Amino acid sequence: MDTAKERIKPELLGGFRDFLPEEMAARQWMLDTIQQVYERFGFVPLATPALERSPVLGTDDPDFAMQVYRFKARGEQDISMRFDLTVPLARVVAANPALPKPFKRYQVGPVWRAEKPQAGRYCEFFQFDADIVGTSSMLADAEIIILIWSVMKAMGVEDILIRVNNRKVLNALPELAGFPFEKIKLVLRALDSLDKAGEQTVRERLARQPENEYDESAPALDQKTIDWIMDFINLRETDKEKLLQILSERMANSAVGIEGVKELAEIKQYVDAYGVPTDRWTIDLSVARGLDYYTGPVFETVFLSKPEFGSVMSGGRFDDLVMRFTGQRMPAVGASVGVDRLFIALQELKRLPTIVASTKVLIANFDDDLVAKRLELAAYLRSKGINTELYFNPNRLQEQITYALKRGIPYLIILGEREAAANMVAIKDLAKRTQATVTPNQLVQTIL
Amino acid sequence: MDTAKERIKPELLGGFRDFLPEEMAARQWMLDTIQQVYERFGFVPLATPALERSPVLGTDDPDFAMQVYRFKARGEQDISMRFDLTVPLARVVAANPALPKPFKRYQVGPVWRAEKPQAGRYCEFFQFDADIVGTSSMLADAEIIILIWSVMKAMGVEDILIRVNNRKVLNALPELAGFPFEKIKLVLRALDSLDKAGEQTVRERLARQPENEYDESAPALDQKTIDWIMDFINLRETDKEKLLQILSERMANSAVGIEGVKELAEIKQYVDAYGVPTDRWTIDLSVARGLDYYTGPVFETVFLSKPEFGSVMSGGRFDDLVMRFTGQRMPAVGASVGVDRLFIALQELKRLPTIVASTKVLIANFDDDLVAKRLELAAYLRSKGINTELYFNPNRLQEQITYALKRGIPYLIILGEREAAANMVAIKDLAKRTQATVTPNQLVQTIL
Repeated sequence: MDTAKERIKPELLGGFRDFLPEEMAARQWMLDTIQQVYERFGFVPLATPALERSPVLGTDDPDFAMQVYRFKARGEQDISMRFDLTVPLARVVAANPALPKPFKRYQVGPVWRAEKPQAGRYCEFFQFDADIVGTSSMLADAEIIILIWSVMKAMGVEDILIRVNNRKVLNALPELAGFPFEKIKLVLRALDSLDKAGEQTVRERLARQPENEYDESAPALDQKTIDWIMDFINLRETDKEKLLQILSERMANSAVGIEGVKELAEIKQYVDAYGVPTDRWTIDLSVARGLDYYTGPVFETVFLSKPEFGSVMSGGRFDDLVMRFTGQRMPAVGASVGVDRLFIALQELKRLPTIVASTKVLIANFDDDLVAKRLELAAYLRSKGINTELYFNPNRLQEQITYALKRGIPYLIILGEREAAANMVAIKDLAKRTQATVTPNQLVQTIL
Repeated sequence: MDTAKERIKPELLGGFRDFLPEEMAARQWMLDTIQQVYERFGFVPLATPALERSPVLGTDDPDFAMQVYRFKARGEQDISMRFDLTVPLARVVAANPALPKPFKRYQVGPVWRAEKPQAGRYCEFFQFDADIVGTSSMLADAEIIILIWSVMKAMGVEDILIRVNNRKVLNALPELAGFPFEKIKLVLRALDSLDKAGEQTVRERLARQPENEYDESAPALDQKTIDWIMDFINLRETDKEKLLQILSERMANSAVGIEGVKELAEIKQYVDAYGVPTDRWTIDLSVARGLDYYTGPVFETVFLSKPEFGSVMSGGRFDDLVMRFTGQRMPAVGASVGVDRLFIALQELKRLPTIVASTKVLIANFDDDLVAKRLELAAYLRSKGINTELYFNPNRLQEQITYALKRGIPYLIILGEREAAANMVAIKDLAKRTQATVTPNQLVQTIL
């Protein structure tokens, strides 16, 4: 690297971010808290690479192709950057049949999407997933809802609403509302935009006619069908028993619909038994979740006071994803924290705890012969578990105090000729603006 | 994604790895331990993106170009994946002049190199860096050596040797051994291969003649010069005072060499004062470190019993790296843990602690009406801070015990009709093969 000739702009790629120490500390608190909750439920850690073979991620699919960073390296390899943590999980499960089932794993890390950067939309963002692979039991789906509730509670956020639906119920729409089953994906994608785009736009999208004979992206539903669908997804009823009763009646002619309602009833029983407050979760028939791979219950989580943030933790059941690799069904269900969105939400709602600097002590340093004594003191304090910095440049005291204040370090220690002669140190409490002279042992007691 | 039609091989790219839960747990222990030591010294966290603008990383440099994953996205952007965490740090420092100095930051994460995968050499590997930016004080260089010692001690590994040298001393070689200064990079690269390739090969590399008139990679030194260099770097002397004395004499005619020796003497004073055992670090004139950007002291760390592993924590001073962006000098020094190499070394030396499963309790589940009771019990245990799993599929007890054993879960709980009637639970200690019937409260006491 030629170091001096031309200056290079120290610029990031659009859509990418640094996390400076103050923000990082708060993010670490958040990630540690989530990890602790996941482990409380028995999830174990997994890590997968940033790069995968493109066929593994299915990035030939035109729905994904535009969003994926994909390139060739060393001539031959067709490489894609992971765009989520779910498809890599499916690969791991397929490649390691000996993993004990149910396999309950968590994974945190960045994922990448080559989207046009917008406010709040990044090309590198973080997900923190928990998934249960290897069981069809609705206890697992209920556990994911309970897990979402537990994560939010651990964040100190209880004013949320977990919205639950079942793709099996939505998959009954073609039969019941009367449209071809091939159109279900297009219909679900239109419904998925309800929160952001509003009912009128969704109606227009459902009615849209093909632009030409090759256009396969237009649902082209008639008005009566659209009315049926909109009426159905707008069914609201806080009494879940009652809602399930109504649903059973409306699904009576659809086998898949009946199955979906039964699953929701079973989930309700478990979530209630666990003690999740009944007004913190709801059965909401308008929840579709965009991803194609969901096959059963789906979940999303909004802040009651800020629904416009969108969902901060979402997921669902995806029983067919491992089958891409093995040819055999492997039931699975999970959810993912949108780390960046949750962080911004907590920030705006002022729910992030004040993170105090992890450094407790700055030992001041001056241009004299006592550096060795100060190094010994640093070694002593660190051996007692106290996070300690020694100032490097012998400097005016005021500058060292300014540095400590900027860094949020609460204590400054002075070990000068006078203190050294008496085997003492002076400690300044920078917040209280007090100073005392103590023994090294008393110093430890004061700080701990 | 089309889920059923063709089966896709669940294969990783060559040179990439998954970390399954057992290995991940041990790696997390290692990373947590390193982080704790870094924080003990007052380092604060930073994160930077996986992708950078190619000019920022300097990936046009032919020395790097072959090793870097570089591609274009959305037509225009020239993107490279980071190959270390040091160049991104320099960018962050240049872009954020308000960061308080000294800026002591740590960063952990994957870096990528498009190398041909070999045993023990990966295309995605992890570094855990600590750097001090904004001071020329040798106290900072000494702190990095102290930090290396502290990290290894925290790992439970004290049989290491930290090898210290100074590029300024090596930069005196052209003057003293008599060869043009333009050749110093080629000479240092040849010396850097000493441990792996041996002295004879290094001599051959130093003597190599250009293959044609355009070959600028051949040092082409004469035999006398090579003898001088090899004699110099082979200077061994455990008494550091004595070695520094000899060095001062041999450097007498080189201003940069004298400066280098003075810096080493100052470092010695601080490292000794802190209490690092004197036989755990050495001044080794053969240490060059391959990277071009080092400008002063350089460090590497080997296991005394396994020097062939190579260095597990290395670094040095790089005063000119920020200048690429700002045109102004910004002194900096740091070191990086080679996470994967250290992990493998600890594994082979059997120094990794046995990580016990984080899940403490499996609540057995059967096909009866007591699921609600078991969910309540799970909620109770988790509220007490006990990592608890509820088995999902009502199943034969033996299968549930097998699952718990595979997962390393120490306790199995049975809450059947009899126990429920008495408000008790049965607890099986799977290691001791004992069983007892207790109240939920006693259960918590037993497990905690």
